[in-house]
Amino acid sequence: MVIRYPNGQDYNPNSAGHARKNQRDVIFGNRGMSLEEELNQSNLYYLQQQVAVIHKKPVPIQIVQVDYPRRSAAVIKEAYFKQASTTDYNGVYHGYYLDFEAKETRNKTSFPLNNFHEHQINHMKACVRQAGICFTIIKFSITQELFLLPAATLFEYWDQQTHGRKSIPKKIIADSGFAIAYQFQPLIPYLTCVDKLIENLRNVKGAHHE
Amino acid sequence: MVIRYPNGQDYNPNSAGHARKNQRDVIFGNRGMSLEEELNQSNLYYLQQQVAVIHKKPVPIQIVQVDYPRRSAAVIKEAYFKQASTTDYNGVYHGYYLDFEAKETRNKTSFPLNNFHEHQINHMKACVRQAGICFTIIKFSITQELFLLPAATLFEYWDQQTHGRKSIPKKIIADSGFAIAYQFQPLIPYLTCVDKLIENLRNVKGAHHE
Repeated sequence: MVIRYPNGQDYNPNSAGHARKNQRDVIFGNRGMSLEEELNQSNLYYLQQQVAVIHKKPVPIQIVQVDYPRRSAAVIKEAYFKQASTTDYNGVYHGYYLDFEAKETRNKTSFPLNNFHEHQINHMKACVRQAGICFTIIKFSITQELFLLPAATLFEYWDQQTHGRKSIPKKIIADSGFAIAYQFQPLIPYLTCVDKLIENLRNVKGAHHE
Repeated sequence: MVIRYPNGQDYNPNSAGHARKNQRDVIFGNRGMSLEEELNQSNLYYLQQQVAVIHKKPVPIQIVQVDYPRRSAAVIKEAYFKQASTTDYNGVYHGYYLDFEAKETRNKTSFPLNNFHEHQINHMKACVRQAGICFTIIKFSITQELFLLPAATLFEYWDQQTHGRKSIPKKIIADSGFAIAYQFQPLIPYLTCVDKLIENLRNVKGAHHE
């Protein structure tokens, strides 16, 4: 039976891209895929399995000139990249609004805060105020280590950076966040960490309110 | 005091665009603005007032060629419009994931279903399965009438169209949906209808589960 993804592509668990090997022999992340590609593949899997609906937002573009050649599709002839006013990924999971950014760094011991823009932080703060679940997926590309970092820790380091350090130590990311291990399907099983994050947020709320 | 929107634009209630007039003398929608512009303005207001975080997604574009002129920004020289795989608007409101499409029609008595693509319907169905709140904002442009139509009614008409009618009668939209009256700020106060929609969904759920 051929399973088709909603985008019309075949899903074939026996094809080269999905080769089922002994897990111990494979570092799943290390295939030259960018973090974005890995996440898109994971989100497609989650969508197809009806686990969650998460999409990467298109890159915002300012279109200046469009040609309409006869008998063919409109061609954009002049356009410019605009700065996004939000994060890259959002969607819905078990009734929760998820909103996150994915970032790679070649740093080994910390994650530099200049990977973020002010408006991305402000967007996440606004979403948290609306009870959205916000976080960052950070990949240390040299060691292929992945973490889910809750927005609260990011905000804390972001807000103190004019007087303090300009990066988040990897140890802090590991302690206040969740390590994500690459696996077969989905490649990046980040929703398992989101479950823990939601549980923690609930416990914190419970402690404050009761 | 100058209030600035998060996009850096000034908000000035006394400027021409925001002229405060007697409500009875003004049809707020009838300013030559498209429904998209009206919604973007409303969403900006909701964002600035910290009521909700709803954004229109950028138009997805396939970039083929980019030039990098010296000392200036990258210029996209060849690109094509791609079909979106989701709806246009989503975001978070009081912990709820909202997802909707906005459509205008010049029809007077019904809303033609060919305004939608299959993948938009499938996307909304997937979001509803994840307990997202999905709907359409429909504008009858000749009469400047606005409605919020819950996804359930849209699905019902969509699923029967091969054997039944290819449009949703305006009467059905008015009966199963909510009329939205243009007002001063926000121009389209659709979240008031979303409140009712959420209340109805809760009542239905309550009736089924208890």
